[in-house]
Amino acid sequence: MFKGLSAFPLTPLNASGIDEKAFLHILARLTAAKVDSLGVLGSTGSYAYFTREQRKRIATLAVQHADAIPVMVSIGAVSTDEVLRLAEDAQQAGASALLLPAVSYQKLTDDEVFGLYQDVTRHVSLPVCIYDNPGTSHFVFSDALHARIATLPHIASIKIPGVPAEIAAATQRVNALRDQLPQDVTIGVSGDAFAAAGLIAGCEVWYSVCGGLFPHTAKAMTDAAMAGDFAAVAEQGQRLAPLWALFTQHGGSIRVIAAAASALGLAEYDCLPRPLRSLSAADVVEVKRVITDLELA
Amino acid sequence: MFKGLSAFPLTPLNASGIDEKAFLHILARLTAAKVDSLGVLGSTGSYAYFTREQRKRIATLAVQHADAIPVMVSIGAVSTDEVLRLAEDAQQAGASALLLPAVSYQKLTDDEVFGLYQDVTRHVSLPVCIYDNPGTSHFVFSDALHARIATLPHIASIKIPGVPAEIAAATQRVNALRDQLPQDVTIGVSGDAFAAAGLIAGCEVWYSVCGGLFPHTAKAMTDAAMAGDFAAVAEQGQRLAPLWALFTQHGGSIRVIAAAASALGLAEYDCLPRPLRSLSAADVVEVKRVITDLELA
Repeated sequence: MFKGLSAFPLTPLNASGIDEKAFLHILARLTAAKVDSLGVLGSTGSYAYFTREQRKRIATLAVQHADAIPVMVSIGAVSTDEVLRLAEDAQQAGASALLLPAVSYQKLTDDEVFGLYQDVTRHVSLPVCIYDNPGTSHFVFSDALHARIATLPHIASIKIPGVPAEIAAATQRVNALRDQLPQDVTIGVSGDAFAAAGLIAGCEVWYSVCGGLFPHTAKAMTDAAMAGDFAAVAEQGQRLAPLWALFTQHGGSIRVIAAAASALGLAEYDCLPRPLRSLSAADVVEVKRVITDLELA
Repeated sequence: MFKGLSAFPLTPLNASGIDEKAFLHILARLTAAKVDSLGVLGSTGSYAYFTREQRKRIATLAVQHADAIPVMVSIGAVSTDEVLRLAEDAQQAGASALLLPAVSYQKLTDDEVFGLYQDVTRHVSLPVCIYDNPGTSHFVFSDALHARIATLPHIASIKIPGVPAEIAAATQRVNALRDQLPQDVTIGVSGDAFAAAGLIAGCEVWYSVCGGLFPHTAKAMTDAAMAGDFAAVAEQGQRLAPLWALFTQHGGSIRVIAAAASALGLAEYDCLPRPLRSLSAADVVEVKRVITDLELA
């Protein structure tokens, strides 16, 4: 399952809590587009803002409505004990894989992060994807640490935070990591602005925020990459530049995707977990203009 | 209560979970030393690694054994909903004040952090101390944002992360912040290596990790500052430089304080919440040597 397009949907809220109807509506768009896997409760799915009970409920709902598409669930938490409880919950909910970041409060050492993956992989039965996202987890993986963790049982893929924009440099970066990994561990690009370069550079997966709301566009781009049509991939990546520019402008993708979801009537305006706030009404209008111009709406 | 020495104890673990006996033993040293306030479940108290139930239990135990010394409890969490639940728990436990950091997963905007403090101060009845710790919460406060938050009801103090080492620069830094605050909001220094400079520069409080394990030394230093004996404060700060050097060497104070507690027989060797790991046995020996040389043991 660690190939192709892995779509990461929002978990929208409303005044009562999680907006399950809106979540299932967004999920139905992804199953209709036949994405290769679903990455629920990723950073875009706001896992870090929910209680254990909420996370179990979302994982269960996602599996029930996944239309047999494999579901990966983030089990990230600051405490290893909590990660182990979340892993158990995700397994009971019927997930197909676990996504594990190194969420840090105290700055972690490499040995501590290795120990986290060791403790977790000893206890789980599902494949685990290493989630390398320094912008949110505040831990920076070295390739050597990735290589060390990748030798553990159950490790199946690495979600890397991005690659250099220039293709030769991106290829060099992906190859440098791959040279240190077991053959069956795939590399997936995230940070949507880097997706084209990452796919052209040989990443087997796109762990995609864009794909969580605009699955047809992201699927076409990923399929083109898998077919070796790198010109089409590069063209799509460039065509979507105004969307990536909004991500940069608003300090990341989540507030822009929430705005796009509300502009499309797929979520309420105020759909992010506090303390996060929705973009201003004017910014939502601008997001709507961009996604309409890009024929994403 | 936002004056003098506020001592921040460890919350040690053992194989069964929280080591309540060890926690109460450490707490008893602080009450015997008559510290001015207790900062339980601070970063050193590992609040970020515990469940809501564990945090309520520790807050309750601390208040019961505080010997009438006011207890401040950290209510930090990524989600505002969780912060509100933790605030309610701390109030029910009998805390005297709440310590609120801007813990972030997604990078927060100034308006989002202001909104967090606004949402919380609307719901609580206790005084609130702003916890400014970019190293763990990954949010950087500007003085302008501190000033904006300090106008909210209940805001009583700001725990700042440190000051420049040089006294003139430290004084300028503390004065620049103070000029923007209401008169009744105190400023407390943390980052123990900066304590002497901060106290000499006019901070009314030392929010102290060192004071959580070595209360007599920290109390003497704080009392000297309150009495205007800045030569004594500077001398103590310099004398303790080998301890501050260990904090730097080991990426922060928590692992060193845990090692010191175990060296003193106040906690088990493996007393930190996973994924955090204890220092090596050799490092614990070195910590013991330093605290013995400094006559802290």
